[in-house]
Amino acid sequence: MDKSRFEAFSDGVFAFAITLLVLGVVLPQLHQPSEAQLSSALYGLWPNVVAYVLSFAVIGIMWQNHHALFRMIARVDRMTVFLNLLLLAATAFIPFATSTLGTYPTMRSSTFLYGLVLTLCATAYNLMLLHLVRRRAFHASVGDETILATIRAYRVGWVGYALAMLLAMIDPLASFVAYLLIAAYYVIPRGLDSDTT
Amino acid sequence: MDKSRFEAFSDGVFAFAITLLVLGVVLPQLHQPSEAQLSSALYGLWPNVVAYVLSFAVIGIMWQNHHALFRMIARVDRMTVFLNLLLLAATAFIPFATSTLGTYPTMRSSTFLYGLVLTLCATAYNLMLLHLVRRRAFHASVGDETILATIRAYRVGWVGYALAMLLAMIDPLASFVAYLLIAAYYVIPRGLDSDTT
Amino acid sequence: MDKSRFEAFSDGVFAFAITLLVLGVVLPQLHQPSEAQLSSALYGLWPNVVAYVLSFAVIGIMWQNHHALFRMIARVDRMTVFLNLLLLAATAFIPFATSTLGTYPTMRSSTFLYGLVLTLCATAYNLMLLHLVRRRAFHASVGDETILATIRAYRVGWVGYALAMLLAMIDPLASFVAYLLIAAYYVIPRGLDSDTT
Amino acid sequence: MDKSRFEAFSDGVFAFAITLLVLGVVLPQLHQPSEAQLSSALYGLWPNVVAYVLSFAVIGIMWQNHHALFRMIARVDRMTVFLNLLLLAATAFIPFATSTLGTYPTMRSSTFLYGLVLTLCATAYNLMLLHLVRRRAFHASVGDETILATIRAYRVGWVGYALAMLLAMIDPLASFVAYLLIAAYYVIPRGLDSDTT
Repeated sequence: MDKSRFEAFSDGVFAFAITLLVLGVVLPQLHQPSEAQLSSALYGLWPNVVAYVLSFAVIGIMWQNHHALFRMIARVDRMTVFLNLLLLAATAFIPFATSTLGTYPTMRSSTFLYGLVLTLCATAYNLMLLHLVRRRAFHASVGDETILATIRAYRVGWVGYALAMLLAMIDPLASFVAYLLIAAYYVIPRGLDSDTT
Repeated sequence: MDKSRFEAFSDGVFAFAITLLVLGVVLPQLHQPSEAQLSSALYGLWPNVVAYVLSFAVIGIMWQNHHALFRMIARVDRMTVFLNLLLLAATAFIPFATSTLGTYPTMRSSTFLYGLVLTLCATAYNLMLLHLVRRRAFHASVGDETILATIRAYRVGWVGYALAMLLAMIDPLASFVAYLLIAAYYVIPRGLDSDTT
Repeated sequence: MDKSRFEAFSDGVFAFAITLLVLGVVLPQLHQPSEAQLSSALYGLWPNVVAYVLSFAVIGIMWQNHHALFRMIARVDRMTVFLNLLLLAATAFIPFATSTLGTYPTMRSSTFLYGLVLTLCATAYNLMLLHLVRRRAFHASVGDETILATIRAYRVGWVGYALAMLLAMIDPLASFVAYLLIAAYYVIPRGLDSDTT
Repeated sequence: MDKSRFEAFSDGVFAFAITLLVLGVVLPQLHQPSEAQLSSALYGLWPNVVAYVLSFAVIGIMWQNHHALFRMIARVDRMTVFLNLLLLAATAFIPFATSTLGTYPTMRSSTFLYGLVLTLCATAYNLMLLHLVRRRAFHASVGDETILATIRAYRVGWVGYALAMLLAMIDPLASFVAYLLIAAYYVIPRGLDSDTT
């Protein structure tokens, strides 16, 4: 499997899934609305817009992680392609989970579903990473410390999404906020990081 | 015809069709649902989710086959472009067949339609392969045994999809299960395969 | 303007527009249909499927023409980018025209609209070609005869689409058939052509 | 962060968002319409078509700006990736703003929303440019005058979109016309420009 075509296909799915998110923001049909009716219908979409921004950040992070991971990888075998397909299947499902979350932002099943899909993404990432480590698919130049740091970072991400998902059973709104905090933590660059290329 | 632009266009259609599958999972409109109503509506979508996963695997396999085939091909003539367009037209129709299958998972016409679209994909693949063999479009380094093995594998895939399609006329659910088994057989990497790159 | 990024963007729009065509095939909502009701609803979509196949061929041909044209082009200036944007805007509108044609295959305004969009595409192609000829943007290796043959082929395509569009005012069904014949003429490779790469 | 994969991802989102615009043009459901009913329904979509063409131009300009900017850039750090993600999130929201504008072309909230989204895009562009200037991420060969000219052009664009947005509060239709004029000003190549590559 040629790594560049593998990456191009993955990038395509990430880019399409991130762009499809906008279909989760739907203006209800109004018949010749007044200015007040139209603007209140648009205001009423703000949970959908928050969910849109959240998922944009989530998929954006995943794309960056994918990129950072495969830069270190020398070769891609069939099992990697399979696990990557799992990851992409979970990622491409995010638009549905996002539109459900945006429409029902304070309900248990919608916030749980959202966390479930993100946890599936994180699971696929962890399985793929473990496989790559076991097969020693990394470039020789990649140090053990870098690999260990990646393993730890991936586990922390998995735990974060899983806890936020479980939180949905107790307090859906808190769960939604947790997703936002996790995404903000990962997506906003921190001081020194941005110095390095 | 430049092979790399030909592959990029095909990859685009595969990646886009696989991402569009999610539009086949649609939550019915509910007016201020209770927790129980929302979660039961979400549970009710499980056949759509199974159909989503199935078609994700199917298109993922097709993309891999496309990749594996054209790695062996030295040049792309107009007839190849035409047959590839047939293949892409059938592939890009999978989202419709998937959403129909997910909505009516136990009915004859929806399961038959799904098999029909997959059989069309397999037919286009077989025609394209035959053309490439006849035109000796393969790289000189590709051995006859590899080509023969590819021809056999493609025929088996065609027969599998066609039989599962015909099964829909007798037992729609068995047909659905057959699609799942065929996809699982192809998509899950087997022991030794994953050692090779 | 870097030619490869220009081509990649155009290819992206062609690939997405061709894949979006499937959204024009929509199964009407049925409440617990019988086998007979579902299969008759599916049969009822055949004009949409014909329109889908037609537009798949049309966009496929446009993509091939785009590819063939820009292989001969050495550089891309701002006016070319502008005219290409016009072409892409007309092409990306084809999914709407296709779904309208598929839903109302025998009415004057839908068949006329379809022809109008294709004539706009052909107009953009002709304007772009004329600009490239006037600016001598072709590779030095491209002979005058090849350029003249391209100019002639583009004009014939424009006339064909425009005539089929006008035919819609007299006989919509004949117009639909004319679109199919034109597309079939261009998309099906003819004997000797396919020998050349 | 590898610049080429960064650009490919951005191009994917631009190309996909521009193609999704067509989903904002929706024919109302008609039951066995007469010729007159169908053609009047199609004519009734002209504001949607104008909004479609407008946004096609807007995203097309943004893609060209993106391209022109990153041709001058030597490296991409994490903050650039973050600001670019903001830009893409605003850009991918344009299809929603466009369909709202096309459906309610003469109302305050829809024309204001459209301007808001474009102003957000322009803000993200300006922030990204400032960051790149501060980090000296430009190729050494790029002169200070070129950078200053880019900064000025970006500011003018921001001011234009923001003024047109504010105009929506006074006169929605004038605001719509202002968007069209701004887009036309940027998208139509002017005399001498098109001589340079």
